[in-house]
Amino acid sequence: RWNIPERVTLTPMELYEKLSAQGDKVRTLKTEKAPKPDIDAAVQLLVKLKLEYKTATGQDYKAGCPPSDGPTLQDNGPSVTEGEDLVNPWNVTTTSAKGVDYDKLIVRFGSSKIDQELVDRIERVSGQKPHRFLRRGIFFSHRDMHQVLDAYESKKSFYLYTGRGPSSEAMHVGHLIPFIFTKWLQDVFDVPLVIQLTDDEKYLWKDLSVEECHRYAVENAKDIIACGFDINKTFIFSDLDYMGSSPGFYRNVVKIQKHVTFNQVKGIFGFTDSDCIGKISFPAIQAAPSFSTSFPQIFNGRKDVQCLIPCAIDQDPYFRMTRDVAPRIGYPKPALLHSTFFPALQGAQSKMSASDPNSSIFLTDTPKQIKNKINKHAFSGGKDTIEEHRKYGGDPDVDVSFMYLTFFLEDDEQLDKIRQDYTSGVLLTGELKKRLIDTLQPMISAHQQRRKLVTDEMVQQFMTSRPLDFNY
Amino acid sequence: RWNIPERVTLTPMELYEKLSAQGDKVRTLKTEKAPKPDIDAAVQLLVKLKLEYKTATGQDYKAGCPPSDGPTLQDNGPSVTEGEDLVNPWNVTTTSAKGVDYDKLIVRFGSSKIDQELVDRIERVSGQKPHRFLRRGIFFSHRDMHQVLDAYESKKSFYLYTGRGPSSEAMHVGHLIPFIFTKWLQDVFDVPLVIQLTDDEKYLWKDLSVEECHRYAVENAKDIIACGFDINKTFIFSDLDYMGSSPGFYRNVVKIQKHVTFNQVKGIFGFTDSDCIGKISFPAIQAAPSFSTSFPQIFNGRKDVQCLIPCAIDQDPYFRMTRDVAPRIGYPKPALLHSTFFPALQGAQSKMSASDPNSSIFLTDTPKQIKNKINKHAFSGGKDTIEEHRKYGGDPDVDVSFMYLTFFLEDDEQLDKIRQDYTSGVLLTGELKKRLIDTLQPMISAHQQRRKLVTDEMVQQFMTSRPLDFNY
Repeated sequence: RWNIPERVTLTPMELYEKLSAQGDKVRTLKTEKAPKPDIDAAVQLLVKLKLEYKTATGQDYKAGCPPSDGPTLQDNGPSVTEGEDLVNPWNVTTTSAKGVDYDKLIVRFGSSKIDQELVDRIERVSGQKPHRFLRRGIFFSHRDMHQVLDAYESKKSFYLYTGRGPSSEAMHVGHLIPFIFTKWLQDVFDVPLVIQLTDDEKYLWKDLSVEECHRYAVENAKDIIACGFDINKTFIFSDLDYMGSSPGFYRNVVKIQKHVTFNQVKGIFGFTDSDCIGKISFPAIQAAPSFSTSFPQIFNGRKDVQCLIPCAIDQDPYFRMTRDVAPRIGYPKPALLHSTFFPALQGAQSKMSASDPNSSIFLTDTPKQIKNKINKHAFSGGKDTIEEHRKYGGDPDVDVSFMYLTFFLEDDEQLDKIRQDYTSGVLLTGELKKRLIDTLQPMISAHQQRRKLVTDEMVQQFMTSRPLDFNY
Repeated sequence: RWNIPERVTLTPMELYEKLSAQGDKVRTLKTEKAPKPDIDAAVQLLVKLKLEYKTATGQDYKAGCPPSDGPTLQDNGPSVTEGEDLVNPWNVTTTSAKGVDYDKLIVRFGSSKIDQELVDRIERVSGQKPHRFLRRGIFFSHRDMHQVLDAYESKKSFYLYTGRGPSSEAMHVGHLIPFIFTKWLQDVFDVPLVIQLTDDEKYLWKDLSVEECHRYAVENAKDIIACGFDINKTFIFSDLDYMGSSPGFYRNVVKIQKHVTFNQVKGIFGFTDSDCIGKISFPAIQAAPSFSTSFPQIFNGRKDVQCLIPCAIDQDPYFRMTRDVAPRIGYPKPALLHSTFFPALQGAQSKMSASDPNSSIFLTDTPKQIKNKINKHAFSGGKDTIEEHRKYGGDPDVDVSFMYLTFFLEDDEQLDKIRQDYTSGVLLTGELKKRLIDTLQPMISAHQQRRKLVTDEMVQQFMTSRPLDFNY
């Protein structure tokens, strides 16, 4: 479900499996007489997991006894553990104004941090200055990115895959994050890109007709194209269209569907017995583009071209599932680059909503609307009076205008100066907001200009199944 | 799952729902002061259902309290009720040598009997002598066939849909029953026909590769074509191919998938949480060809052409589900014609198996193999010695050779004479078997001759998505 945050809290069954694995690890370390600090660390994690398990299930962990199918598992969403961030398909909430604790997420998801070493390596391999999203930790987590770079260095290519769930015509600036970054990756690595529009998913989840969902897909495609993708290297597809025009895609969907049980999707996505069978089998449809055989027209039937997926961290459950299935159907696991969430104007604790025009800046907003929204709604980390602000300074880490500038202001030195001046009290909230307004107004106008130039023929061409400018 | 018998026994939840409805009915009749015999009959059924419920769940029925999710519901298959026939997707068993009690099935499924009046009406409307399968009660049950004939009489057309699950290259004579009858229907009513080969289903259920399943589909198509279907009026499709070449088909699949929950398919097909999501969502794929919009190339986008499905009674659960969904997505309900099961050579209590060459006559058998199999394996209703047989006569109702003759011997008078002579003892078992051998040998040889004439180009043409010789 592209662009809909997924939950992060583990289900009792996932916790149980993690505990079992950790128990095995402790036993192995002890048997192998591993160094004491290693054993201690493993035992410590085991104890921590047991505590989490007890909190989540109300039961003590017992090896060999999976959690009983009690009421905790019957809930549609996972229960909130105190002090933890709740990130599920219906909600992203956190008790901290700074937003979700991403370091914790990395530990929970078992992904890897994008550290300075990896950023430097991307710079070295691509020969380009790393994108600001990399420099500033907006893309903060990954899976197997080193493997992708190893292969790239030995002239083995990869391809990019990202997507969007077209639930309405209205896209906001937050929706652009994965596309802005993906365009940069396409430019610096010169690889094919496939973009999935899950209009089938929107039909299954929303009270919309098939035709409406398909129309939203086409409208959203225009905004995506306006990001500047190369028409000779990019294939954008609606599931409703592409499933019915590519036997390769459907074959991969069926292969994935054979290797994932209802128990698994229940654990990963929180589905229940009352969910429709379309939702239950949908994860396979978001997984399938991770395999190059889903696009025989692009990859000439080759099944070994690795996929790299830039996406928001909430999409990771789909791709953990995909990576689990991949070796069992003879395909390489997709690699991933995860971004943080884009905060709502009202603050990182709020949820952005396409139905609330004041929760973000939309791609259709006029300069005046942008100015008013920011001045009126952007949560401020400044002090209540000018006097206090001058004296104590503002807090950029909870200030939404400053957060937005980290996403969109290209110049590192300017951003750093704004942070310093705001923290010291030299820069007032109104002035900070002005900087954001001055950054977003031309950016949105330019987007609107480019979108106007996107013709129906271009959309049609981007969305036609065809070979791209690569030889496989 | 074409050609795989489905279970007949109701789940506790289905029984519960039936009971609730019957309770409502009794109350309504009493409130409306209906005639006493009507009330008595309704109460009698209610009592019977309560007894069935208690047997199935071990609990007393309580209005408003659905059956608890106890161990009975967790079983993969339904429990066997004593003296009842067990008909589930993995087994068809009956304790009676005469086979399944089809009158009971009609009551349980809520379908209608094909009575003499309906047979006569088909003769009147079509202007043709009814097929022997109709004359002899082999097609014995229906849904909405009168509605199809009403429409046909006022010049509104319908179309035929049947199918097969291609689990191996080997087809036996039993597999031909729906196709022989469907060809007759196509000839007498002159309507379009679509034939689904569920190679995707076989991949999901069997330990076979996608490529093997697709190859079996193409091989099976040759045997189906050899039944004599009109190439200008028939479209045969592999799911793996057609799903990936028809946006109309996929859109209908998604529409159905949105309107069926896991709870429903669990109740209907006995799926469990350990089943893969492909199996769970598959019923929508067998349902979709019941709607004319799945074939825009044939019906020119029209969504109101009714579908008539000739199939074995075990397929009914798929189409009860389909009929339930149809009005909610704006389509007409498909009508059905149900056949009995084809008995194994070893008797109606045995299951035919494509992996046991002696369980039936295969379409590839030589005249010698046919003769040996019938002489050696066909269960006989004759007496142990010639003397006893002459004295007491044989029992045609349990004799497999006689059963096969009811399927394949066209002449009613001959069949009746055989029945009389066998029952009286005039006809010996060896002589009865000879009659069957003499009927099947030329029939199978002729089939093999016709199959040899089926070229790859013909298969290709039958299996190409294209308009047929009808104007919609």
